[in-house]
Amino acid sequence: MPVEIERKFLVQGDRWRAGCTQIHEFRQGYLMSHEGAGATVRVRIFGDHAFLTIKGAKSPSRAEYEYPIPPADAEEILRSLCGDRLIEKRRHCVPHQGLIWSVDVFSGSLAGLILAEVELSHPEQPLALPSWVGPEVTADHRYRNSVLARSTTPPREKLKV
Amino acid sequence: MPVEIERKFLVQGDRWRAGCTQIHEFRQGYLMSHEGAGATVRVRIFGDHAFLTIKGAKSPSRAEYEYPIPPADAEEILRSLCGDRLIEKRRHCVPHQGLIWSVDVFSGSLAGLILAEVELSHPEQPLALPSWVGPEVTADHRYRNSVLARSTTPPREKLKV
Repeated sequence: MPVEIERKFLVQGDRWRAGCTQIHEFRQGYLMSHEGAGATVRVRIFGDHAFLTIKGAKSPSRAEYEYPIPPADAEEILRSLCGDRLIEKRRHCVPHQGLIWSVDVFSGSLAGLILAEVELSHPEQPLALPSWVGPEVTADHRYRNSVLARSTTPPREKLKV
Repeated sequence: MPVEIERKFLVQGDRWRAGCTQIHEFRQGYLMSHEGAGATVRVRIFGDHAFLTIKGAKSPSRAEYEYPIPPADAEEILRSLCGDRLIEKRRHCVPHQGLIWSVDVFSGSLAGLILAEVELSHPEQPLALPSWVGPEVTADHRYRNSVLARSTTPPREKLKV
């Protein structure tokens, strides 16, 4: 089973910007995600690419099945079947000690929220945290994108950072 | 937008069997379908083929996006992410006056249920009903496969036929 092992953190300050090597604009929506837990079906568009992704429930190791689909289909599915469960974010790739961190800067109703994610090879993999990384939120369902997609404001903790 | 226009009927007797030209065994499951209405995400396996299918809510015309996926993925998704929302049925292809009818004989907890479906090119297309077709259930959510998949018995009307 293909598995995504991911850890997720809040972000402190903007020192991460200095290390950014690449930027992608993501638009993504969710078909019928459960409240908080459960599997999700995501449609994501970035540049000329679009993907349909099924993710299992468990964090930080989640089953993940991803398939490329025609961008025109993805646009229609986002528009007609994802309701208002949409996310727009700018993903910044920031290499740090051999891993690529993804720093996602959200816009729209989630403006102000910035999350850093990193994919690991196995759950116990030692992780060198960059200095700009804040509290870990891997296990906090409120920070799952499928949950954020239904939110009208960023989770409250973000404001403390 | 790719659209599936489908009408669905109960089946009376088994005279349809004489016209059957092909049989496929289907196993399919659903990721997070809503109660009764709403979009669905289906995983279907038949023979060496597997498909991931997103369907919109509206009957008889529903948006439908279908993508082939590796059968091994489909097996895993069925097993690990569809819970007990599974359907097993034997599909019989029965040509009638220029259209191919699909007569689905369900098994497992839905044993005894037989439904006939036919795909149309447009919603108002005149339809010559075979003599073995019973009451139409196109608009009856209980007969949606995503709803049947959560049922432990066939809908009650079936028993009257």
